[in-house]
Amino acid sequence: MSLDFTLLATDGAARLGRLETAHGGIDTPAFMPVGTAATVKAMMPQSVAATGAQIVLGNTYHLMLRPGAERIARLGGLHKFMNWPGPILTDSGGFQVMSLAKLRTIDESGVTFQSHLDGSKHHLTPERSMEIQHALDSNITMAFDECTPFPATPEQARTSMELSMRWAVRSKQAFQPRDGYGLFGIVQGGVYPDLRQESVQALTQIGFDGYAVGGLAVGEGQEMMFQVLDATTPLLPQNRPRYLMGVGRPSDIVGAVLRGIDMFDCVMPTRSGRTAQGFTRHGTINLRNARHQDDPRPLDEDCGCPLCREYSRAYIHHLIRSEEILAPMLLTWHNIHYYQDVMKGLRAAIAKGEVQAFAQNLADLEQQGDITSVK
Amino acid sequence: MSLDFTLLATDGAARLGRLETAHGGIDTPAFMPVGTAATVKAMMPQSVAATGAQIVLGNTYHLMLRPGAERIARLGGLHKFMNWPGPILTDSGGFQVMSLAKLRTIDESGVTFQSHLDGSKHHLTPERSMEIQHALDSNITMAFDECTPFPATPEQARTSMELSMRWAVRSKQAFQPRDGYGLFGIVQGGVYPDLRQESVQALTQIGFDGYAVGGLAVGEGQEMMFQVLDATTPLLPQNRPRYLMGVGRPSDIVGAVLRGIDMFDCVMPTRSGRTAQGFTRHGTINLRNARHQDDPRPLDEDCGCPLCREYSRAYIHHLIRSEEILAPMLLTWHNIHYYQDVMKGLRAAIAKGEVQAFAQNLADLEQQGDITSVK
Repeated sequence: MSLDFTLLATDGAARLGRLETAHGGIDTPAFMPVGTAATVKAMMPQSVAATGAQIVLGNTYHLMLRPGAERIARLGGLHKFMNWPGPILTDSGGFQVMSLAKLRTIDESGVTFQSHLDGSKHHLTPERSMEIQHALDSNITMAFDECTPFPATPEQARTSMELSMRWAVRSKQAFQPRDGYGLFGIVQGGVYPDLRQESVQALTQIGFDGYAVGGLAVGEGQEMMFQVLDATTPLLPQNRPRYLMGVGRPSDIVGAVLRGIDMFDCVMPTRSGRTAQGFTRHGTINLRNARHQDDPRPLDEDCGCPLCREYSRAYIHHLIRSEEILAPMLLTWHNIHYYQDVMKGLRAAIAKGEVQAFAQNLADLEQQGDITSVK
Repeated sequence: MSLDFTLLATDGAARLGRLETAHGGIDTPAFMPVGTAATVKAMMPQSVAATGAQIVLGNTYHLMLRPGAERIARLGGLHKFMNWPGPILTDSGGFQVMSLAKLRTIDESGVTFQSHLDGSKHHLTPERSMEIQHALDSNITMAFDECTPFPATPEQARTSMELSMRWAVRSKQAFQPRDGYGLFGIVQGGVYPDLRQESVQALTQIGFDGYAVGGLAVGEGQEMMFQVLDATTPLLPQNRPRYLMGVGRPSDIVGAVLRGIDMFDCVMPTRSGRTAQGFTRHGTINLRNARHQDDPRPLDEDCGCPLCREYSRAYIHHLIRSEEILAPMLLTWHNIHYYQDVMKGLRAAIAKGEVQAFAQNLADLEQQGDITSVK
């Protein structure tokens, strides 16, 4: 295999593992901060690493349009370009073409679209997506797929899934294998267990270094998402990593780990860091709220990030009101740190066979809410 | 004296010194990054310190309006609030009331104005300015003055200067002396040497811990600014620090050091960091320019800041085009680092009696411009 994956322990369906890449290893369950345009927004890469993050995600759609994949290749690849020496996963571009680009048309060959930046016309196919991700020097390349919209009828979901499976074959054929680099297939099929099962069968027959579950966190809700996982993850190979794309809130991640998922990405901690939202052990806190203006306490007493060690809620509130750049800098750092703390907690709990208790404790704390803030 | 100042060496009129405050020492000539709203914009305080900066400036006008001086005092003072354990200088608020506030009226007592933030009405006097700066726990308090506009007739400049001198008396009376804290008077008098001389006499008679030269860098140009300095600094006490307010470009600073100035502040390195301008040994470089898009070289080969050690011009250009927060973060860091490098170079040159040669070399390099970038 191009990517070594070792399953170190299990606790129910939850898994503790280690994935090795040419740019370093990843302890799973892992959360990957999103570095859309070759930067985890408002963060120095050293700070991203300081949170405990071991891998970041780059977006093929954004990078192909600006600054261009071949330009990044000439400049030494994405790791060097963005000064992130660790592992990088790139998505295939398919999802964001459908959500961001203009005048999209899909046919069997791929997707034709206009750039949301300058209107320039582009054609993205499984072959071109593999070529771009290779040029970026991505450690984990994602197969090119269509993310089935929600809601979709069984017929729509089948048509879409079957197209993605044909594109998965072409992605595998176009991918250039190298040691320490790998290709993940993406399970589609909407909310329909039989379609998910067919998709898993198609992908495992092709053979991938890892398996992603796509088409979730698109509006179906946590309960239905967990139902789809319950119907999907038991079918996936035990010896390969599983990645739930675009998920999610801490409770989504914990629930998915309990259902056998190993890897996650989501813009939530970074985006929330730019909109005054702090994730804590006591739920989400909006630091723009005036009740924080005289509060000398840290955002989260139990957090070891710079925001919580060195600043008061009153100060962060002031920065937000003053629209100071340091506000998203500190709050993004905190949120990623918190997410990584959750992942560390999950890994330690799985190792000890206590993941259910860990999940319950986290849920209880979140449900209590921000009790320490009520005056 | 409340602030110990040691003159360690001189080289012509240029001075090497050390100023001690309750929060640490400052090697002079010193450049103070501006932290208007209790943050040096786009910088972590540790990063500010890593550039070599030993003191930062806070703006009384901004802080009195938001979050409020008494609030900062309740939260432990400005050092703790903004997590800057080193020395802090605050201006008096006078300059920014006149440039930012609405519906300003000046009378003998002080200035009445409306906040540019919410229209609320405020009255700022020498006594209130001292009270605010005390509440902030500022190490170096500036006397409350009126910055004489440019141009001004000799009569206007005299009237304004004489008002500032009466306010200087009241500032001194209202200031609460403490060990390691001090009060600076501000020389006014526009571009008129006789008025500057009268102002120096008035201030030295009152007696201050340091002397600032105000009312410059307001449109009079470098040549006239240097003429005013030539007529002013020889009159100032040798054993007290001199501070040229709001200056300036590196060449302004070097010229002023040659004329006996010890301290500087300016928004230029921080503001330029948010508008794609990088200060280098080869002049100012606009990284938004498309000619940088494929350039693998660092901004400045001889700079030790993170931007220059770890990133290409192409990457910074990409961040700027993509409006990524990391662009001002890195470019501000670089610019402050460059300014501190200039100050270190000046201090080393004064110690060796080579400050003229240092100044000439810097001017020659800047005049050559960005020759390394021309393709």
